[in-house]
Amino acid sequence: MNYYMMGEYDVIVIGAGHAGCEAALASARMGKKTLVFSINLEAVAMMPCNPSIGGTGKGHLVREIDALGGEMGLNIDKTFIQSKMLNTAKGPAVHSLRAQADKHQYHEEMKKTMERQKNLDLKQGEVVDLFVEDGKVCGVILRTGAAYRAKAVVLATGTFLRGKIFIGEWSFSSGPNGLAPSMELADNLRKHGMELRRFKTGTPARALADSLDYAKMQEQHGDEKIVPFSFMNDELDKEQISCWLTYTNAETHEIIRNNFSRSALFGGQIEGVGPRYCPSIEDKVNRFSDKQRHQLFIEPEGLNTEEMYIQGMSSSLPEDVQEAFYKTIPGLENLKITRPAYAIEYDCIDPLYLKTNLENRQIENLFCAGQFNGSSGYEEAAAQGLMAGINAALRVDEKEPFVLDRSEAYIGVLIDDLVTKGTNEPYRIMTSRAEYRLVLRQDNADLRLTEKGHRIGLVTQERYDRFLKTKNEAAAEMERLEHVIVTPTEEINAYLVSLGSSPLKSGISLSELLKRPEITYALLAPLDKNRENSLSMHSITQVEVQVKYTGYIAKQLQQIERFKKLEDKKLKQGFDYTKIEGMRLEAIQKLNQFQPVSVGQASRISGVSPADINVLLVYFEKMR
Amino acid sequence: MNYYMMGEYDVIVIGAGHAGCEAALASARMGKKTLVFSINLEAVAMMPCNPSIGGTGKGHLVREIDALGGEMGLNIDKTFIQSKMLNTAKGPAVHSLRAQADKHQYHEEMKKTMERQKNLDLKQGEVVDLFVEDGKVCGVILRTGAAYRAKAVVLATGTFLRGKIFIGEWSFSSGPNGLAPSMELADNLRKHGMELRRFKTGTPARALADSLDYAKMQEQHGDEKIVPFSFMNDELDKEQISCWLTYTNAETHEIIRNNFSRSALFGGQIEGVGPRYCPSIEDKVNRFSDKQRHQLFIEPEGLNTEEMYIQGMSSSLPEDVQEAFYKTIPGLENLKITRPAYAIEYDCIDPLYLKTNLENRQIENLFCAGQFNGSSGYEEAAAQGLMAGINAALRVDEKEPFVLDRSEAYIGVLIDDLVTKGTNEPYRIMTSRAEYRLVLRQDNADLRLTEKGHRIGLVTQERYDRFLKTKNEAAAEMERLEHVIVTPTEEINAYLVSLGSSPLKSGISLSELLKRPEITYALLAPLDKNRENSLSMHSITQVEVQVKYTGYIAKQLQQIERFKKLEDKKLKQGFDYTKIEGMRLEAIQKLNQFQPVSVGQASRISGVSPADINVLLVYFEKMR
Ligand SMILES: Cc1cc2nc3c(=O)[nH]c(=O)nc-3n(C[C@H](O)[C@H](O)[C@H](O)COP(=O)(O)OP(=O)(O)OC[C@H]3O[C@@H](n4cnc5c(N)ncnc54)[C@H](O)[C@@H]3O)c2cc1C
Ligand SMILES: Cc1cc2nc3c(=O)[nH]c(=O)nc-3n(C[C@H](O)[C@H](O)[C@H](O)COP(=O)(O)OP(=O)(O)OC[C@H]3O[C@@H](n4cnc5c(N)ncnc54)[C@H](O)[C@@H]3O)c2cc1C
Repeated sequence: MNYYMMGEYDVIVIGAGHAGCEAALASARMGKKTLVFSINLEAVAMMPCNPSIGGTGKGHLVREIDALGGEMGLNIDKTFIQSKMLNTAKGPAVHSLRAQADKHQYHEEMKKTMERQKNLDLKQGEVVDLFVEDGKVCGVILRTGAAYRAKAVVLATGTFLRGKIFIGEWSFSSGPNGLAPSMELADNLRKHGMELRRFKTGTPARALADSLDYAKMQEQHGDEKIVPFSFMNDELDKEQISCWLTYTNAETHEIIRNNFSRSALFGGQIEGVGPRYCPSIEDKVNRFSDKQRHQLFIEPEGLNTEEMYIQGMSSSLPEDVQEAFYKTIPGLENLKITRPAYAIEYDCIDPLYLKTNLENRQIENLFCAGQFNGSSGYEEAAAQGLMAGINAALRVDEKEPFVLDRSEAYIGVLIDDLVTKGTNEPYRIMTSRAEYRLVLRQDNADLRLTEKGHRIGLVTQERYDRFLKTKNEAAAEMERLEHVIVTPTEEINAYLVSLGSSPLKSGISLSELLKRPEITYALLAPLDKNRENSLSMHSITQVEVQVKYTGYIAKQLQQIERFKKLEDKKLKQGFDYTKIEGMRLEAIQKLNQFQPVSVGQASRISGVSPADINVLLVYFEKMR
Repeated sequence: MNYYMMGEYDVIVIGAGHAGCEAALASARMGKKTLVFSINLEAVAMMPCNPSIGGTGKGHLVREIDALGGEMGLNIDKTFIQSKMLNTAKGPAVHSLRAQADKHQYHEEMKKTMERQKNLDLKQGEVVDLFVEDGKVCGVILRTGAAYRAKAVVLATGTFLRGKIFIGEWSFSSGPNGLAPSMELADNLRKHGMELRRFKTGTPARALADSLDYAKMQEQHGDEKIVPFSFMNDELDKEQISCWLTYTNAETHEIIRNNFSRSALFGGQIEGVGPRYCPSIEDKVNRFSDKQRHQLFIEPEGLNTEEMYIQGMSSSLPEDVQEAFYKTIPGLENLKITRPAYAIEYDCIDPLYLKTNLENRQIENLFCAGQFNGSSGYEEAAAQGLMAGINAALRVDEKEPFVLDRSEAYIGVLIDDLVTKGTNEPYRIMTSRAEYRLVLRQDNADLRLTEKGHRIGLVTQERYDRFLKTKNEAAAEMERLEHVIVTPTEEINAYLVSLGSSPLKSGISLSELLKRPEITYALLAPLDKNRENSLSMHSITQVEVQVKYTGYIAKQLQQIERFKKLEDKKLKQGFDYTKIEGMRLEAIQKLNQFQPVSVGQASRISGVSPADINVLLVYFEKMR
């Protein structure tokens, strides 16, 4: 049967999950004629697992996506039902925003945004093959025989490729959440020479709100003062709903342990590798056998549904075991399950086959993003989607790739980890993965990235103007604070003592005073007669953090400079490393195969030692 | 692999489409412990085709479902976005209510109602087999290995069983709307001895609102005065959205005709039989080749989406042809398709295998409903679902079946047509199928059915009290109008003349006056000094229709009496008709095989002639 040509686009995106949506929007906003497919349009920006966006590390990604002109932050600001800044007891480097979402609204708003986006067509359809000519992708074919040409393609198929669900000893082909899997495309990608592997992830059961006993659980409220995800939003005010905290216990663990033999995980049926940092409950009980209890959060799936999500309790045990162990948990004694927990296995690529711009090393103009790249998580997917979309658009214009390095963004850390170090399990971002945490804060993502986003044409003028205003406002205020000197009057010292701060001995700038841990910008107000009260919440945060941590930040910036030196030493693609005398064989093989873009990247390749890097540096010094 | 037992229910419903939802709610409301499955919970009460409920004949069904205590009427009243009483220029027998729905809200509200319903559990899961013991169904098995026992099962799988989609020469396994099909259950039903056949249906493309030119189409408004579907609602007030009317033309037809060879329909790939009364556009162009144009309605799919539905234009032509012919239509020149039109083929049962209570003739306690029974349409599905749910619940209590005959309800006509006459194509209700149209009006569905619904325990006390109040109110008012006599004063005659009515010659009751076609109840007000203005809209309609058509109605009631005589002559199940001398062989075979419940039903079996029925009547007269 012959396919028939339907049209031509600059960029085609396969998949409208969190990765695909960002990719498509970025490409369209950069002026490229863009087409995006989803097997089912009701599953656009679907959340198949937890009903929330953000969290430690992930919240940073959302802020960065937003600062670059992406959509996730705006979309969750429209649709959250509870918001919380996490880790506020710790330093600003690990403050992370997290919001519960109304799942359906999240989908609906994202879909609407896509429908209304200029240059963007959103279509229901299943891609079954790519056109590849001379090692370059140049279009896609759908199940219906329709075909489209494209200058670049973004692959963002999530957990759908040859999806297979496991519950106990039973398994069957399926996409997530009772949706159809994508079988044919996986086979054809293999035919094009792609090596795919199997990863797995899992989700807990959903239960009816009405069947739970809230008196036995601890209520969890949202923040009183809501910090928006998007730099485009000022303070948000919304009625928030509660979540609920409860715990597993010895009985729960016993039931699980007694049924290890019926678990897909331990039965050996699952070949895919699961995420170490989101383990199933049987995994937790197995690995942390001395732990008395595990905490669970009970979270609403939305405002207009009775379904609740049981966070922390994913499982691939049979349904009867699930029901038994969930019912041992305080508050869940009479729970009614609406959807059982399950594990899902899917085809994905080894991200070592990707370049730093997320382009496939084997097929030119094919960019890859999201869970397909071996990551896990909505935010990780969205971040890669954005970068893949940007780079696909740049490719169409034959422009230089847009790559963020590890000192510029968590997005840089995420992608560099994936494409340089690879991953043996679904990769998840964590603040501990970043070397320059104090610089890569969630509060300054705009300062780090909005300028760059503007330069590539993704950040709108409106966002850019707003950014400049805040940036200048905060800078001016920091400058001003340095020059307002307070002197040790009795009144002032009494005030300081009342705040638990030591009295002044001599004149001191407000800037210096602000460095004291117990002093906030707000508390300085009585000492600061000329202050104009127009500073935004965001600018106040900037002033506080930058002033308080100025020393640490300066030190980290020095480290970054050293780091940048190696990143800036670019390496020629296709260089033959056997030419370099004195380098170990393993390193030569790795470098020849990998072809790093810089000495910096070379230094992070597993199997390349610091000594090898020294040899490399000396060689290039000589060659100059 | 062994399944594992999860629990026991009175009634299990397979499928939560329009049929399954009504079945499950009816059973639960009748006090039965009920469990309902859907492959995907996001597709509960999904509308895979037109975004509307009601229409000619179908509106009658919704009213009847409501009068019996079903949900469809209440649910559309909550979620409609435009409402219209059709055929108001014709007599009250064919007045039919039709409402545009917000598709997502329709789903969401129905799901919420199910989630909150006592005795009802709603679960995501795919049933792959039935437990059948000694010819009786006694449970179901899921894809996950979970199994449940049940005293009765309702099968309502819609278009999912071995679903196969056709677009041009391409076809592939799929459920509707990009959802997964149900393959295994179909195979296992066959193993249990069920003979399944293939029917097909189709849906048009969806297009982006923004891509259409409304200046070239005719705007269609909703009614100013909204009549609710449910007898539980008084006047509804809501802002309504518009739909748009446009037409195909010679160019459209030419493109379609030129591509007949690429159509799945004419190419012979589709073995399933499609609905004659909802033909695809290629079918219309083929069959009505002299018709210059066909009308199309452009209807929003909801308030929170940009997708529009192109009513009247279903097709299984390839996507390129679709795009070409849609673009020939005024207003659609630049349309952007979000989902292409397609035809879907699926397994269903020959309804001749069903009893009048929708129980399967081959497997006891298995009730069947909806598209699976060979019907088409949301309302047809819901009506059967309700009856199947009621009868499943009654069976659990070992009570008599609940059957409506052709003189009592369109539901009776629908089910009697299906189970007695069978159907060779997806069956759709039409007012012309009813013999007693003037009695089976949409306005009096409560008078016909609410008493019955109350008796079987489905109608709530609240609904019943409300019903009695209206009923008594209307009856009292009709009685009163008979006794208010107006005499021919000059003033009154002048008023009548001003209404285009002839002046009085002698005294006449308001009742008589109301029989004049040009006189409405409202117009009588000036002549009716003692009227209390508290009558509900519904009662006013009753008074008007019953008074105006009293003669015709009386005549039809006589016909019904004759009809009932044959229905009341019950026939023994398992009777051997070869015993009856003088009957034609064909009739004997048919009757032996079919085992009708009454002489009435026997008379409608194809192949049984009026002469055969006479022989039958004589035989039973003699036997007495
Ligand atoms: C059961 C489950 C549990 C999870 N648990 C966790 C967890 O605990 N923690 C966590 O951080 N993350 C978890 N995740 C991961 C998270 O859901 C994903 O990382 C995220 O949704 C991935 O986004 P994506 O855009 O890469 O893919 P997806 O959101 O999966 O979107 C894929 C898109 O591709 C489309 N598509 C696929 N194939 C085709 C094709 N051939 N043609 C056209 N369109 C196609 C689909 O229709 C869909 O629109 C879980 C996911 C699942 C399914
Ligand atoms: C493409 C298309 C076009 C149509 N066009 C028209 C039209 O023009 N005019 C018209 O009047 N009608 C049309 N219809 C028909 C109308 O949609 C159906 O008649 C109506 O939805 C049938 O309702 P139902 O409850 O029988 O089945 P559905 O609404 O199809 O629901 C079936 C339910 O069964 C579930 N299910 C199926 N198999 C299993 C299983 N093994 N285990 C658990 N759950 C299962 C599904 O998840 C779903 O919840 C069309 C339908 C489709 C799909």
